[in-house]
Amino acid sequence: MDKYLERLKNGTLKLHALEKELPAPEAIGVRRAFIEREAGVSLPKLGSFTMDPSVAVKKNVENMVGAVQVPVGVAGPLVVKGEFAKGPFYVPLATTEGALVASVNRGCGAITRAGGADVRVLRNGMTRAPVFSAKDIIHARGVKEFVDGNFAALAAAAAETTSHGELTGAMAFVTGTTVHVRLEFDTKDAMGMNMVTIAGERIADLIEEKTGARLVALSGNLCTDKKPAAINGILGRGKSVVAGVAMTDALVAEAFKTDSATLAEVNYRKNLIGSARAGSLGFNAHAANVIAAVFIACGQDPAHVVEGSGTFTTVERQEDGVYVAVTIPALQLGTVGGGTGLDTQRECLSILGVAGGGDPPGSHAMKFAEIVAAAVLAGELSLLGALGAGHLARAHKALGRGKTQ
Amino acid sequence: MDKYLERLKNGTLKLHALEKELPAPEAIGVRRAFIEREAGVSLPKLGSFTMDPSVAVKKNVENMVGAVQVPVGVAGPLVVKGEFAKGPFYVPLATTEGALVASVNRGCGAITRAGGADVRVLRNGMTRAPVFSAKDIIHARGVKEFVDGNFAALAAAAAETTSHGELTGAMAFVTGTTVHVRLEFDTKDAMGMNMVTIAGERIADLIEEKTGARLVALSGNLCTDKKPAAINGILGRGKSVVAGVAMTDALVAEAFKTDSATLAEVNYRKNLIGSARAGSLGFNAHAANVIAAVFIACGQDPAHVVEGSGTFTTVERQEDGVYVAVTIPALQLGTVGGGTGLDTQRECLSILGVAGGGDPPGSHAMKFAEIVAAAVLAGELSLLGALGAGHLARAHKALGRGKTQ
Amino acid sequence: MDKYLERLKNGTLKLHALEKELPAPEAIGVRRAFIEREAGVSLPKLGSFTMDPSVAVKKNVENMVGAVQVPVGVAGPLVVKGEFAKGPFYVPLATTEGALVASVNRGCGAITRAGGADVRVLRNGMTRAPVFSAKDIIHARGVKEFVDGNFAALAAAAAETTSHGELTGAMAFVTGTTVHVRLEFDTKDAMGMNMVTIAGERIADLIEEKTGARLVALSGNLCTDKKPAAINGILGRGKSVVAGVAMTDALVAEAFKTDSATLAEVNYRKNLIGSARAGSLGFNAHAANVIAAVFIACGQDPAHVVEGSGTFTTVERQEDGVYVAVTIPALQLGTVGGGTGLDTQRECLSILGVAGGGDPPGSHAMKFAEIVAAAVLAGELSLLGALGAGHLARAHKALGRGKTQ
Amino acid sequence: MDKYLERLKNGTLKLHALEKELPAPEAIGVRRAFIEREAGVSLPKLGSFTMDPSVAVKKNVENMVGAVQVPVGVAGPLVVKGEFAKGPFYVPLATTEGALVASVNRGCGAITRAGGADVRVLRNGMTRAPVFSAKDIIHARGVKEFVDGNFAALAAAAAETTSHGELTGAMAFVTGTTVHVRLEFDTKDAMGMNMVTIAGERIADLIEEKTGARLVALSGNLCTDKKPAAINGILGRGKSVVAGVAMTDALVAEAFKTDSATLAEVNYRKNLIGSARAGSLGFNAHAANVIAAVFIACGQDPAHVVEGSGTFTTVERQEDGVYVAVTIPALQLGTVGGGTGLDTQRECLSILGVAGGGDPPGSHAMKFAEIVAAAVLAGELSLLGALGAGHLARAHKALGRGKTQ
Repeated sequence: MDKYLERLKNGTLKLHALEKELPAPEAIGVRRAFIEREAGVSLPKLGSFTMDPSVAVKKNVENMVGAVQVPVGVAGPLVVKGEFAKGPFYVPLATTEGALVASVNRGCGAITRAGGADVRVLRNGMTRAPVFSAKDIIHARGVKEFVDGNFAALAAAAAETTSHGELTGAMAFVTGTTVHVRLEFDTKDAMGMNMVTIAGERIADLIEEKTGARLVALSGNLCTDKKPAAINGILGRGKSVVAGVAMTDALVAEAFKTDSATLAEVNYRKNLIGSARAGSLGFNAHAANVIAAVFIACGQDPAHVVEGSGTFTTVERQEDGVYVAVTIPALQLGTVGGGTGLDTQRECLSILGVAGGGDPPGSHAMKFAEIVAAAVLAGELSLLGALGAGHLARAHKALGRGKTQ
Repeated sequence: MDKYLERLKNGTLKLHALEKELPAPEAIGVRRAFIEREAGVSLPKLGSFTMDPSVAVKKNVENMVGAVQVPVGVAGPLVVKGEFAKGPFYVPLATTEGALVASVNRGCGAITRAGGADVRVLRNGMTRAPVFSAKDIIHARGVKEFVDGNFAALAAAAAETTSHGELTGAMAFVTGTTVHVRLEFDTKDAMGMNMVTIAGERIADLIEEKTGARLVALSGNLCTDKKPAAINGILGRGKSVVAGVAMTDALVAEAFKTDSATLAEVNYRKNLIGSARAGSLGFNAHAANVIAAVFIACGQDPAHVVEGSGTFTTVERQEDGVYVAVTIPALQLGTVGGGTGLDTQRECLSILGVAGGGDPPGSHAMKFAEIVAAAVLAGELSLLGALGAGHLARAHKALGRGKTQ
Repeated sequence: MDKYLERLKNGTLKLHALEKELPAPEAIGVRRAFIEREAGVSLPKLGSFTMDPSVAVKKNVENMVGAVQVPVGVAGPLVVKGEFAKGPFYVPLATTEGALVASVNRGCGAITRAGGADVRVLRNGMTRAPVFSAKDIIHARGVKEFVDGNFAALAAAAAETTSHGELTGAMAFVTGTTVHVRLEFDTKDAMGMNMVTIAGERIADLIEEKTGARLVALSGNLCTDKKPAAINGILGRGKSVVAGVAMTDALVAEAFKTDSATLAEVNYRKNLIGSARAGSLGFNAHAANVIAAVFIACGQDPAHVVEGSGTFTTVERQEDGVYVAVTIPALQLGTVGGGTGLDTQRECLSILGVAGGGDPPGSHAMKFAEIVAAAVLAGELSLLGALGAGHLARAHKALGRGKTQ
Repeated sequence: MDKYLERLKNGTLKLHALEKELPAPEAIGVRRAFIEREAGVSLPKLGSFTMDPSVAVKKNVENMVGAVQVPVGVAGPLVVKGEFAKGPFYVPLATTEGALVASVNRGCGAITRAGGADVRVLRNGMTRAPVFSAKDIIHARGVKEFVDGNFAALAAAAAETTSHGELTGAMAFVTGTTVHVRLEFDTKDAMGMNMVTIAGERIADLIEEKTGARLVALSGNLCTDKKPAAINGILGRGKSVVAGVAMTDALVAEAFKTDSATLAEVNYRKNLIGSARAGSLGFNAHAANVIAAVFIACGQDPAHVVEGSGTFTTVERQEDGVYVAVTIPALQLGTVGGGTGLDTQRECLSILGVAGGGDPPGSHAMKFAEIVAAAVLAGELSLLGALGAGHLARAHKALGRGKTQ
């Protein structure tokens, strides 16, 4: 140990090179010890984990020193009436923010009593948009024309790189001498960022070769990945999902201690007028909270919470109640790859019945998307209800400060 | 055990009520067993954790069934030259996405070789915006005039609810009969959402009483919390931070295998033109990745990654190199409250020297903000460099699929 | 004539230099003849105008060849209940789009029957935002600190350039090495762009001198002038105005052949959901139409229609009717300067009682703003009513194709 | 006369009904006299016009009282190298804002000396998006599926209403229970709003009939008409046009008294960073100014300036100069219909060689679009140059206040 620490200290051994000399568990231990010494701290809990580090250091993380533990609660049963997800589910939520699970749980209860949430996936396509430089606008237009006219060739290029994914669309955008080509893929049960990056590179090679345009970057921000962007709201990214539920006035009163008119007014003045006035791209109450908690529990990329925050929540009066819906244009998720292979994360996916690849391929990711949308609906319902009932601050006071009774 | 499972099954015991009858560890065990049975799965790893569950179930989560483990790597040393953070830091990053830590680490190396990143907090203020209904536009204007003319009274009302925080601003927005009042607070070392919600409620009571307007919701989306919104980019939320570093052409070449002109062009065509064309509110490469990883490691609210994604990355040619900067208008974080009290999360904060409240109050949160901004800068530099060098797809191939050598 | 045409043709006389050799009417005639010859066309009507060309060529236009005639209709009486505009008004609308005046007129009728529109100006401030380059982020922060701490000095600098206007605000925005300083002025009865540009230059000189930052451009797009921008919706530009009217169910039925619920639903699904889904900054039906028509009639800058299009229209059910309002955050207008001095435009302003400077200064512009907001309200009401009644296409068929009977 | 005035006064004759009793010129005269009396003003100049009022009152305006005269200047020669517009053009600009024509003219000179501006139309399609209400999200998804699967039927329905236009696209957007169907048409030489509204109504009838969804409004704001919206930037509306020009360092210096590096920096800090920071959808300097002036001169709908303001201006250093381009995603214009039939407006169109319908149909509108884009490029170049040279305030001082010498 000391020998390694000394070499790390004097720079003859790089922190990231420890795995080359030691098995993963030891490498991690030495590295943690080095950090403890450098920072003058002790990290015993960070060093306590049950995952197989030899897998993690290869697929999920570099310079590993341990693992952080995020408590997981369940909300449910939540009855989902999708095309892939049917029946009651308990949704695992990893969070450190008191009141969140309780809130979603309350929404699940209301939805379930209402007979369940209808859910449909409207669109499906993961995107990557390489960006090219053309020499002038005529050249740029030529690149666009090449893309518009050669879809089969682009698809064939993509097919050389993957047998799982498939190119399903290509749109070229000219901005002066800059050309973005937004490629869209069906990536089945994978979230698919790696797949589309690799396929995108092959397609970019082809475009460079055939048009003489120069590839500037494999990702040109029209994807748009992990940034809020209207393009994802309009064209979709990953899964575009919609979930809705009709609730009677009686159920609203019972579940949320408020009434249908108030629920609709809160949504109107907060989620519509408020977001419009804020120059926002997200017209919802807290979709990001629910998506973040499910994503962390289930090994998804948590930065994709950004796109999920572009959810539209709608509440409309109906004859004797309300219809509440969430529309999530860009929900990126997968049940294979990324963090889905880690033990605790896979267990969380298994609670939903979506661990690993589905049969047929893609069906697990679709089912997962439907459940997440229903959970977001539950979260929205519950928070709108709480706001309507004036509960918010009181709930925070009680739960946030550790006084639950 | 079986008795509880039976009562849960037949509905005579609610899932969330287990802690009323059993100590936390047992309650969690029964609940997990129930979920295992309901879902027909086994969750042994989820049940293995070292945190103190009796704390977690009171402050952080409800319906707890276990904990998910997220691997943590470190990037560094990263030399930060802030007003609160000075010197080299190792930044803990919790992630399941291979290549992220390696990428940030590469950026840290470059920054450190360049002498470190300058960082400054430009603004500091956590917000909450209750929304009111007025009876007509003249009444609405009256509410605005009340807010504009009675700051001291609003501040006094807030002060009744907290000795830690302080009201620092209040702006009223009229939209027809709807009035939003965006309240801004200095919340010291706390991220402050609970604090501002509670203080906001008291202020809302005062506004209702004095103006006759009716409170519709304590949060009216002009805050804006966990949704992308221009208002946060313009007025700031939480900490507004800027970090920058000058790099020579030689260092760019050595660190990123590319050149300064390419770095600037990638930023221009991707982060500026691409984001503009996408209708985006985020002009960066992947700020959300870095913020998400630090936030999960350090017990922050991961849904606040949404606001962080509104970062502006700029790259400008200088005489013999480039100047690269990130501007993060809305970075919400804290070193007390929320998930910061959990063992592994507090250990991660301790690596940065910011666990718990600072002396003076607020200084830990400021220091933490400076370090995060520098880490985001490292992440941006590295990804721009990789894109410039055409490395992206290859890096994903190697690291994402578990072939690191 | 021929001599001039020959010199223009052979390049020894520049087109714009004609006024140096000839009185305005002759210069215009020669120039028009030259264009007729070059383009091979005849422009007799363009040459028929009654304005005093010697004024126009000095203040309003260069290279003048004539004048275009835009037909003007009136809508009204429109009863306005503002703080400056009180009573019935006939609003002049210059337009070539059949059905527009008729539509606004119908809305005026409904408002007037409802007792008139309440209108209030919420804010008043014309802006200009010079942009500076700093050498690094610390320097940039220093510029912001200078601006934040020296308002009096900035105001004094502005005061050297104008006795009419007054600096009322200054906000600095740091983005990496770029610093924008958004200056806000009370420009009284002038729209004020020239005034603020000139005052802005003096302030920019001071900032350069005191901070060492370099002025890059006097207008840095955070103004924001003539581009749609969230900043104007949030902070306002020019006049921020709100107008509203309550209408009974009976009046809705009589005036619009539809009902209150339908009016509210059209606004909800079109102006709120539709605009949200479009990634729009304008949540209204056609505010731009009305603003454009009034602006062209009254000698305003028609490019400011862009900001006006960021209007929020709201329709809410009330006990026995609806409350309809328009909120216009950025309405830039004036009654002196620009095109207000031209004969026909001044006559249009006179119809509203706002030609020339008001007493006290600024009151004419305020009154004008109130009337415009009420007219926008009339236009919104009418179009929403027509959509509700399913009239739109039929109205277009009849009026757009010249079949009015 | 007095008899009519009395009847108007006592309400037995409606202002808009005058044309039913009197020939247009007399009707206009009586109406103007009535307004003069009501407002206590005299409107002699407004009553002086040369257009044929009997045409105007049928097609362009209701309640006509006269015409406003807007001075027209020309900028040019501007060499355009498009697919439809080839050669030098003089561009008519109707404006009351001093300095605008001079500025555009300076840009035209520079472009022409550079050999002309390349221009290409990238896309062409006028849109209208009716909005429907579905009973739940499953029904809403069904509407989308109907639209996705029945393009031929939709096109056939459209074809029943017009022989000029043609349906070229249909996209359905589900938001909860709301469904927008964005229809796109080739409207040849017409701007096409009436055409697409009428065809859109027929298609909406079909969708109602086949799906049972209820039409809420023929225009649902996803068109998006006359509001700033990301959807138009992404998908285009009307013509999507790009224009570009390469200029040598020498020409930049000569034409603009600045240098290429400065031009690029002004664009970067103002049009890119500034607009990004403002939450803007327009990344340009003053495209709206040029579009407004051409549109008013040429009888276009001036409210469409809103969409034009969403222009992207790019300036890039090249080996020995700069490449400057403008990309206008949504330029709506036509050479038949609307105001194009009025005398002075048609004369302005004739200067550009685009009055009336083209041969083949649509070619005039394409040519017109190319010229407008080149003119916008001229305006951008000139203002960026002026800002670069620090001329702005001085230019305003001299020209805006009538001191041209």
